[in-house]
Amino acid sequence: MDTPLLDTIQSPVDLKKFDYRQMEQLCAEIRAFLIEHVSKTGGHLSSNLGVIELTVALHRVLNSPLDTIVFDVGHQCYTHKLLTGRKAGFTALRQAGGLSGFPNPAESPHDSFIAGHGSTSISVATGLARAKKLKGEPGLVVVVIGDGAFTGGMTYEAINNVNGLDNLVVILNDNKMSISKNVGALAGYLSQLRSNPGYYKAKSDVKDVLDKTPLVGQGLKRGIQTVKASLRRGIYHSTFFEDLGFQYIGPVDGHNLPDLCGLIYNAKNNIEKPLFIHLDTTKGKGFEPAELNPSAFHGVPAFDAKNIPDPDFSPGNSFSNVFGKQLAELGQQNKQLCAITAAMKYGTGLQYFKKQHPQRFFDVGMAEEHAVTFAAGLAKGGFTPVVGIYSTFLQRAYDQIIHDVMLQNLNVLFAIDRAGLVPGDGDTHQGIYDAAFLSQQHSMPIVSPANYAELTYWLPKLLQGYTTPRAIRYPRGTEYEPMASFACMGKVYNKLVANNKPAAALVSYGSETGDAIMAARQLAQQGTQADVYQMVFINPIAPALVQELLDYPVVLFAEEGIKQGGIGEHLALQLYTAGFKGEFVHLGVPEKGNDHASVPEMKAEIGLDAAGLARKLLEAL
Amino acid sequence: MDTPLLDTIQSPVDLKKFDYRQMEQLCAEIRAFLIEHVSKTGGHLSSNLGVIELTVALHRVLNSPLDTIVFDVGHQCYTHKLLTGRKAGFTALRQAGGLSGFPNPAESPHDSFIAGHGSTSISVATGLARAKKLKGEPGLVVVVIGDGAFTGGMTYEAINNVNGLDNLVVILNDNKMSISKNVGALAGYLSQLRSNPGYYKAKSDVKDVLDKTPLVGQGLKRGIQTVKASLRRGIYHSTFFEDLGFQYIGPVDGHNLPDLCGLIYNAKNNIEKPLFIHLDTTKGKGFEPAELNPSAFHGVPAFDAKNIPDPDFSPGNSFSNVFGKQLAELGQQNKQLCAITAAMKYGTGLQYFKKQHPQRFFDVGMAEEHAVTFAAGLAKGGFTPVVGIYSTFLQRAYDQIIHDVMLQNLNVLFAIDRAGLVPGDGDTHQGIYDAAFLSQQHSMPIVSPANYAELTYWLPKLLQGYTTPRAIRYPRGTEYEPMASFACMGKVYNKLVANNKPAAALVSYGSETGDAIMAARQLAQQGTQADVYQMVFINPIAPALVQELLDYPVVLFAEEGIKQGGIGEHLALQLYTAGFKGEFVHLGVPEKGNDHASVPEMKAEIGLDAAGLARKLLEAL
Repeated sequence: MDTPLLDTIQSPVDLKKFDYRQMEQLCAEIRAFLIEHVSKTGGHLSSNLGVIELTVALHRVLNSPLDTIVFDVGHQCYTHKLLTGRKAGFTALRQAGGLSGFPNPAESPHDSFIAGHGSTSISVATGLARAKKLKGEPGLVVVVIGDGAFTGGMTYEAINNVNGLDNLVVILNDNKMSISKNVGALAGYLSQLRSNPGYYKAKSDVKDVLDKTPLVGQGLKRGIQTVKASLRRGIYHSTFFEDLGFQYIGPVDGHNLPDLCGLIYNAKNNIEKPLFIHLDTTKGKGFEPAELNPSAFHGVPAFDAKNIPDPDFSPGNSFSNVFGKQLAELGQQNKQLCAITAAMKYGTGLQYFKKQHPQRFFDVGMAEEHAVTFAAGLAKGGFTPVVGIYSTFLQRAYDQIIHDVMLQNLNVLFAIDRAGLVPGDGDTHQGIYDAAFLSQQHSMPIVSPANYAELTYWLPKLLQGYTTPRAIRYPRGTEYEPMASFACMGKVYNKLVANNKPAAALVSYGSETGDAIMAARQLAQQGTQADVYQMVFINPIAPALVQELLDYPVVLFAEEGIKQGGIGEHLALQLYTAGFKGEFVHLGVPEKGNDHASVPEMKAEIGLDAAGLARKLLEAL
Repeated sequence: MDTPLLDTIQSPVDLKKFDYRQMEQLCAEIRAFLIEHVSKTGGHLSSNLGVIELTVALHRVLNSPLDTIVFDVGHQCYTHKLLTGRKAGFTALRQAGGLSGFPNPAESPHDSFIAGHGSTSISVATGLARAKKLKGEPGLVVVVIGDGAFTGGMTYEAINNVNGLDNLVVILNDNKMSISKNVGALAGYLSQLRSNPGYYKAKSDVKDVLDKTPLVGQGLKRGIQTVKASLRRGIYHSTFFEDLGFQYIGPVDGHNLPDLCGLIYNAKNNIEKPLFIHLDTTKGKGFEPAELNPSAFHGVPAFDAKNIPDPDFSPGNSFSNVFGKQLAELGQQNKQLCAITAAMKYGTGLQYFKKQHPQRFFDVGMAEEHAVTFAAGLAKGGFTPVVGIYSTFLQRAYDQIIHDVMLQNLNVLFAIDRAGLVPGDGDTHQGIYDAAFLSQQHSMPIVSPANYAELTYWLPKLLQGYTTPRAIRYPRGTEYEPMASFACMGKVYNKLVANNKPAAALVSYGSETGDAIMAARQLAQQGTQADVYQMVFINPIAPALVQELLDYPVVLFAEEGIKQGGIGEHLALQLYTAGFKGEFVHLGVPEKGNDHASVPEMKAEIGLDAAGLARKLLEAL
C-alpha cells in the first residue's frame, strides 16, 4: 500500500513541517496501514485506531523525548511507534525479533516506560515530572490514559498525589470502553460529562476559536485562554478532576486535529497546574467492524478484513472458552456460583456465564484488588465466587489473596487464565509467577490441567468438593498437541511415560509436560530411557509422587514459571527430606528477557523445549 | 474505675433502652476506660477515641449482626468490642490469649470480616451486600472508613462498583488524618466540603431537625428527608460521591449522638440507593495529648497518661529510628536520594528525612502501589528513591515491584520495616512474605541485618554500590539481645559459632539468628556441637556459604517467614545441587494462626525459639 507521507517520517521532527491538511492525510495513511498490518500479524486494533489523531497531534506539537509521553497499558502505542522510526518493524509486530506491541525503552528513546499492566501511567508520570522539577529540567510529561484505566485504583492513588505539578498533563482518551464494555460509576460520570450541554458548549468554543487560528501563535494562545476562562466562569459545575487539583478541559473531540494541536500547544506554553484534558474518541475509529464491536477487535489474531466473524463468538476451542462454557453450565444447577472478572470478559471466556446468569456475573473493571476482596465478601455471604483473571494481572491481588481470602479460608476459586508463557506480548504479560506465589500457601489446592479433559474434569470437582481457597490455572490458547490426546485419569499426578530401566524422571505440569514427553521420545531414540510424570495438583505435592520419584538417579523438573519459589523447589526439598539421593535439575523461566515471540520460540530460547530438556538431562546423567 | 452503664452491656441489645443522656454518659465511660486501658496495654488510641459516639449510635440503632458493620483497617473497633461483650478482654489487649486489636470473626459474630490492611472495607461490603440481595435477605451493610483509607486505590475500585446497592451505607469518619497527617488532593477536597458553608448549612439543618425530634419515629424520618431534599435542591454543587452514584449527606458532627442516631435510623428505614454519610470527627477526641498530636497516639506502647513525652520523638532506639536518622544524614551528601512512605512516616522513621529534606520526601498516603511505581518514575528520572514500607503492606505492591521496577532494573531501594514476626497485631500484620516474594527475583540483593551495626553498615553500601533494585529488611522494634553485641563484619554471611567437631549447622538470618545462637549454647551444654551461620545477604545466596555448609551432616535452617518459597528452600536446592549429602531441616512460620502475642511467645508456639530449634536439631541427629 502507498503511504507517501508516512514514508517521509523517520522521527517526530519530520512531522513539524506538516500543515493540517497533510496531517489529515497522514492520519488516513496510518489508519489504512494499521488495518492492513494488524489484519496480517494480529495485535491491538481498536484502541490504536482511536488515538491516531491524538498521537499525531502530540508529536506535531511536543518535542519527544524532551517532552515525555507516558502511555497507560501501552498497547495503543502503534501510531507512536510509526512516528518514531519503527514502521519497518510492523511486518513482524509482536513476533520474535520484530516490534514489541507495547512501549519498551529498550526499543526507542521515545518509549519512556514499560506499560503492560494498567493504571500505572499517572504514578510513573508523577515520578518523571517530579524528577524534572527537582532537577530544574524543562519539558512536559504527558499521560495518555483510557477511561478503562480509571477503573483501576492506582490511577486514584496517583491523582491524589499530583500535588501542583505544573509540568504534568493527563489526557483522558475516553472511548467509552475499557477492554470489555466499561461498567461502573465512573463510566456513568464520564458519560454525564460528555452529555452535559454546558461542557459541550466549552467544546464548541474551542472549535470556534481554533477554526480561525493559525496552527501556532499568540492568537491561538489567547483563544484557548478564553475558553479556559469560560470554563471557570462558574456556570459549570466543577468536575471531579478539578476537585482533585487539576485544571480540566473537555470534553473535546479526540479526532479533530486542529482542536488537539491547539490544546497541546497551549498546555505546553501556558500550563500553570496539573492539566486534565478529556477527549471524546471512538474506539476502532475508521474501521467499521471495529467501531461496531471494539471489544472483539481489542487484541486480535490475524484476521480477514473482508470477512469478519461474529464478534460474540467462540473461535474454535481454547482453554478460556472450554472453561467459560462449562462454568456457565455448572451455574445452572449451582445457584451459589458467581463469576467475577476484571475487564476480561471475553479473554476469560466468561461471556457465556454472563449470558446465562447475568445476576451472578460481575465485571468490576481493571480492578483485580477489588475483584478478589469483593469475592471474599461474596464468599463470606454464602456464595461460591469464581475469580477469572489472567495470571500476570492476578499479581495485582497478591495481598488481597493473602489478607482477605486465605486468612479466613474463604470459599473462593481462582480461575487463572494465561498461566505460563504467553505469546506475543513479552515480559509484561508472562504468567510465570502465579504457581510460585499461590503455592506459598502450603495447603492451597492448585490444579494445573494440561488439556481440556483435565480442565473439565477438575473444574466441577474443585467447585463441589472444596470450600476453601483453591485455584485452577491453564495456558493461553489451545491444547498443546502432545498433551491433547491424553484422557483425564482423575489423579493428582500421572505417570505418562514408563520404561523398564529408566535412567531418569522428567517431571512437569501444564503444557510443558508435552515437551517432557517429546524429550523422552527423543532420548529413547538415542538409547536413554526417561520416565515422564505430570503433576496435576502442583500444590500441595502428593506424598505418593515424592515416594515414586525417590529411586530415580536423576529427576529433571521443568516449569513455565520462575525458579526461586517455584514448584520445582518445593518438590526438591520434599524429595531430599524424604531421603532422595539422586540429582535434581530444576529448569524454569528467567524473570526478565522473555520478549514477545511464540511459545515454542521462547521455549527454545530458554531451553524448555524438548531438545533443551533432553540436552539438560544428558548433561546430568 | 467505675463504668456503671458500660458494665450493664453484654451485647448491643442492652443498649436499646438507653436515652440520649445515658448514651452520653456511656460515651464518657468508654472514653475514660479506653484511655486508662490503652495507657497500660498499648494499642491504637487516637482513632478509637474519635469513633466512640458513632459506634454507640450504630449499635443503638442497628441490629448487629443482622445488620453488618465492616470496619476499614479495623483498629478503631475498640468501642465496638466493648459493646459486644468483650470488655473483660481489654486487660490483655493485643496480648497472647487476650483480645485482638482488630476485628476477628473468630472472636465474635459481630466482627464481620478481618481488617488489618487498609482500604478493603467497601470491597468487602459490596460483596456482603450483593450476597444479601441475591439471597433476598434484609439488613444493612454499614462501612466505617476513615479519610486515610481514601488515599488507597481499592476504595475507588469498590466505589466504582457499588452499582445501586440499596443496602449499603458508607460512613466516612473524616478525622482529617490518615495514620500520618493526611496529604494529597482528596484531603483538600474533603476540607473544602467541610468548610463550604453550603454544606454546613445542611449540617445545621440536620441539627435543627433532630434537636426537636424524639429518638426515633416518623417525625425524625420526615425531618431527615427534608434535609435530603434541601441537599438536592441544586444550590449545592454535587459532590464527588454523588457523581459516583451515592446519595451524600454531610458533613455532620461525628460526636453528636442525636444527629448520628437520626441519620443511621433514617438510613435503615429509608435507604433507596448507596448512601454516603460524611462525618466530621476529631481524632483523639477527649484526650488532649492525643487531640494535639493524633499521629503520636495512633498506635502506642503503654504510656504514662500523666506524663506524655514529646511527640516528634525518638523513644529510645529502634531499627526504624536508626534507619531514619541515618538516611536523613546520607541525604545531606547525596542529593539524588529521595524517601517515600505510604502513610507511615513515624512508623518507618522517615520523619527525620522529611525534616531535613522536605523537597525529597514524599508521603503518598495509604497507597503502596503508587508509592512503588512513583519511585520507579523518580528512578527513571535520575533519582535514587528509598521506599520505606512495612513488610506486610509491601505485599500490596507485589505487581508494581515486578512490572514497574524489576523489569526495567531501576535504581530503587526497598527499606522494609516490620520484617519477620510482628508483636501484638496478629495474622494480618506479620512480615512473613517479603523474603519469599522478593527473592523470586534471583538477582535482587536482599540484606537482612540482625542489629543496628549491620543496618548502618549496609544502608550506605546499598545506596552507593548498586544501581538496580535491592532491599534491606529489618524487624519491628529493637535489637534482639543475642545479636546486639555482634559487630558488623561487612560480610554477606557470618559464621558466629564455630566448633571443633560440629554435628550440625544452624543457619538463619535477621533476629532469628539470636535464637540459633542460644540454641547452640543449649546444645553445647548437652554435649552437642552446632555451628551457627547468619546470612546477611539472604538473596542471592553466597556460593561460598553453600560450599561451607556442604560437609555438615545436618543443616537446620530457621526463618521468620513462610516455608514454601522461603529462603530455606532456595538454600536447600543449592546445597543439594552442589552435592550436599546430609539432612536439611527447614523451619518457618505457618501462613495463618500467628495470633497477637509477643515475638518470643509466637516463637515458642511455632518452635522457632531456642528450645524449639535445639529440639528439632536433636531429632534430626
